Amino acid sequence: MTSSHPPDATLADAGEFGAIAAFTALFAQSSAVVVGPGDDAAVVRVPGDVLVSTDVLVEGRHFRRDWATAEDVGRRAAAQSLSDLNAMGGTTTAVTVGLVAPADLPLSWAQGLAAGLAEECDLVGSSVVGGDLTRGDVLVVSVTAIGHAGGAPVLRSGARPGDVVALVGRQGWAAAGLAVLSRGFRSPRAVVEAYRRPEVPYDAGPEALLAGATAMVDVSDGLLADLGHVARASGVVVDLTSAALPVAEPLQAVGAATGTDPLTFVLAGGDDHPLTATFPSASAVPDGWTVIGSVSEPGPDAEAGTVTVDGSAYDGEQGWRHF
Amino acid sequence: MTSSHPPDATLADAGEFGAIAAFTALFAQSSAVVVGPGDDAAVVRVPGDVLVSTDVLVEGRHFRRDWATAEDVGRRAAAQSLSDLNAMGGTTTAVTVGLVAPADLPLSWAQGLAAGLAEECDLVGSSVVGGDLTRGDVLVVSVTAIGHAGGAPVLRSGARPGDVVALVGRQGWAAAGLAVLSRGFRSPRAVVEAYRRPEVPYDAGPEALLAGATAMVDVSDGLLADLGHVARASGVVVDLTSAALPVAEPLQAVGAATGTDPLTFVLAGGDDHPLTATFPSASAVPDGWTVIGSVSEPGPDAEAGTVTVDGSAYDGEQGWRHF
Repeated sequence: MTSSHPPDATLADAGEFGAIAAFTALFAQSSAVVVGPGDDAAVVRVPGDVLVSTDVLVEGRHFRRDWATAEDVGRRAAAQSLSDLNAMGGTTTAVTVGLVAPADLPLSWAQGLAAGLAEECDLVGSSVVGGDLTRGDVLVVSVTAIGHAGGAPVLRSGARPGDVVALVGRQGWAAAGLAVLSRGFRSPRAVVEAYRRPEVPYDAGPEALLAGATAMVDVSDGLLADLGHVARASGVVVDLTSAALPVAEPLQAVGAATGTDPLTFVLAGGDDHPLTATFPSASAVPDGWTVIGSVSEPGPDAEAGTVTVDGSAYDGEQGWRHF
Repeated sequence: MTSSHPPDATLADAGEFGAIAAFTALFAQSSAVVVGPGDDAAVVRVPGDVLVSTDVLVEGRHFRRDWATAEDVGRRAAAQSLSDLNAMGGTTTAVTVGLVAPADLPLSWAQGLAAGLAEECDLVGSSVVGGDLTRGDVLVVSVTAIGHAGGAPVLRSGARPGDVVALVGRQGWAAAGLAVLSRGFRSPRAVVEAYRRPEVPYDAGPEALLAGATAMVDVSDGLLADLGHVARASGVVVDLTSAALPVAEPLQAVGAATGTDPLTFVLAGGDDHPLTATFPSASAVPDGWTVIGSVSEPGPDAEAGTVTVDGSAYDGEQGWRHF
């Protein structure tokens, strides 16, 4: 990153247009971008119907500057919205960013954020095409992703009794990382890094669409909570098989060190952004996915919208609550 | 607005999903919406290239709850982004909303905000298709508009020497309203209302595109500031004719009462969201627009990017600074 501003410059020092110029220098524009940053609106070429999703990160609630670098926050802010399009079976073409920041925010931090946004977008060939920068007492990053899918988007409402449930990508790692950071530790490094920067399986959403996934959701609030959305929208019951859920070694280590059942990280943890989807049969599940359960009709023991574990209600923490 | 929540319920009482359900009940979906609120992303049918723009309002900086109703804030938040697409010659198809709100925000206020967003979107046939709700200490509303134009979007960079400059819509009214409110008054009512709810000339942008406008911008930061963007992007000088600028009677009244030259409201005021555009000739200017100036080559007296008034630099306030 080069800049004509001194290393200790703040956003106020750079001014609105100086700061915006410093960010946009970091945003490479793909061939799908007809008009990039700098006009009243950007213009983007999207083949077919447009997928759109907005997610917001708030300092102190979704990130802490002492726990993550500016680049990490940028990566995570972009990943959250890109993952939403992934969960429809789509790919992001462009993003816009709304940034609210205190006047004394170091310009270098804001540039780091912009660099992180650009890096994450680059993973799927998308571009940061515009946004808004405004002053406020709380640091807020709002990211909107627009993009497209190579077929009918995969909704939450298509799961059918007899389908299998499958998972792709790391799940529970970020929650384990957060548990560690909350206790003042910085290791195991793998889970702390997972909390800072999700590794989103961006190829898996479009692959699942092509493979005939009947329903799909990204896990941002917790596996139980997000599969609950699928179960409710589809009018079905989802049952998970605990023995099939991947509980990686670092999660076991954090569980042992913190006196937590590591399965809790997997069932209730957010922020990793893996995908979970339902498929008509185990043979339809693409490589790289793990079958973790099945879909059934509602019945006397489980009403539509229920998610059970080994056939019973789960009685631990269900997931992340925003209010 | 009907709701199963008690009249004094807060967002925390309603919970994330209760609050979202209360909002989305207010969002009618147009036939362009393939998938509306409630999935990982919305799906919208946009004919041709996609215009996209994001704007953010922050409480205390862009609005005050004692100066405007929740509906007013919703109207203004949507208008800001819809106006950006208008300034490209386009129309908004759908918007997403990122809302950061304190837990004790009355649910009724948030519903009023949602109603205002829906009303403003309805003016152009667009729909609120999704968003994100999260807790934070400061009230922030981020709106992203996506849409399309019926031809090549009108950029800021196309103004040419010899073009005429024209304006459509009220300009300076919101600034006069803000001047009044800042002094603790509530009249003249017309300017106070203009500050609370801009009346955006949504038909004028697409009409200007069809009429062959060479450059266009919406006036959100001030006429001088926003025409400065056009002058810089186009490499030209813009000269305004003060006698041609409309200074309506309520602006004159506020000027007299506050000891302000009312032309200042017109030259430097923001928040009204009129359009200003350049056209190849006066005969190309559509009905309803007022010719307010002309475009010329840069020269020894005025470099590219300069906006002059009656041939000279203007030495009052230039416009709104975000940092």
